[in-house]
Amino acid sequence: MNIIESLQWRYATKKFDSTKILPQEKIDTLIEAFNLTATSYGLQPLKLVVIKNKELQKQLTEHSWNQQQVADASHVLVFCIENAVGEDYISKYFDNVKTTRNTPDEILKPFKDQLVDSFKNKPEEEIHNWASKQAYLAMGNLLTVCAVEEIDACPMEGFIPEKYNEILNLSNHGLTSVLVLPVGYRAHDDMFSEFKKVRRSIKDTIITI
Amino acid sequence: MNIIESLQWRYATKKFDSTKILPQEKIDTLIEAFNLTATSYGLQPLKLVVIKNKELQKQLTEHSWNQQQVADASHVLVFCIENAVGEDYISKYFDNVKTTRNTPDEILKPFKDQLVDSFKNKPEEEIHNWASKQAYLAMGNLLTVCAVEEIDACPMEGFIPEKYNEILNLSNHGLTSVLVLPVGYRAHDDMFSEFKKVRRSIKDTIITI
Repeated sequence: MNIIESLQWRYATKKFDSTKILPQEKIDTLIEAFNLTATSYGLQPLKLVVIKNKELQKQLTEHSWNQQQVADASHVLVFCIENAVGEDYISKYFDNVKTTRNTPDEILKPFKDQLVDSFKNKPEEEIHNWASKQAYLAMGNLLTVCAVEEIDACPMEGFIPEKYNEILNLSNHGLTSVLVLPVGYRAHDDMFSEFKKVRRSIKDTIITI
Repeated sequence: MNIIESLQWRYATKKFDSTKILPQEKIDTLIEAFNLTATSYGLQPLKLVVIKNKELQKQLTEHSWNQQQVADASHVLVFCIENAVGEDYISKYFDNVKTTRNTPDEILKPFKDQLVDSFKNKPEEEIHNWASKQAYLAMGNLLTVCAVEEIDACPMEGFIPEKYNEILNLSNHGLTSVLVLPVGYRAHDDMFSEFKKVRRSIKDTIITI
């Protein structure tokens, strides 16, 4: 399949085959791809929780508007944002740049000072919004990677973050949940897999100048 | 290249070869992929402006913190959100579902009423934020498609949306710009293409349960 055929193959899976489990290599590809996502300033204010535990999945389903995909999927990925992106967090990023690229401090310092300053002055809600957008970017990346790897997936905004945070103990990790992605294999009788894709026509979504 | 090698190949291109132009098939792939992006409720509150006009690109560079990628890229893609996602907009979506899938009105009506109601009660800023997140998801998709297609790209938040809106006449189209993506071919002397990727280690970004 070329990339367009892959994107046409994918759909928001409504029913997973609960007997099928993704091989670990596929999960490793998703993990690696998540970590390679481009993010604003390269700061990666994100973590991914990878769940493969039927009891827990059943429990989370109750807080996902009862969407059975959470219970039936092979794995459930929870996209989380870092609660604290301040001087400490930003300093660690620049330490990583220094170690990885051997960049001298005098080159990094002005960028670091500017970034620390700019985040110091941002209200918490603005940082939360900024980080959430990076989670959506990571989701966009992973949905396409799933399509290429022929992994079925269902992107979800419909869940109760507070309940996920509580059940997964996310505040202990300094995290907040923002998006959920059950992954696995579509059930043979998921009628949605046969439905035509509903999309606006290209002439309604593209302006060429 | 497998998908991970493709994601490792990509980087935020700092210098484009201004003499090289992407073939129209590549642009068509990006357009088609943009339109196939998954969005919240399937509403696609997005449009893509595809610019190939050196004069205009030069003008936009001034409002992009002088980042020369906007001037030098083969094409510049501007991700825009729809300003008005209300009853009219949502009705058109359900008309499209009906036409595409031949779904009877009585099945669609409860979903439509619920969605219209929920958007009616949302403050404008909340809808703007919701739509912007879908733009980030589309950007995540396109960055990965670029990687697979070996198209160089540089995702940008650093530009002045008001100026882009004005210069591109976006309010006439009911749109607001939220993200910019110059695409094309890296210059041979873009030293950033040789730099090691800076990423947190997998153990710092993944929690397995």
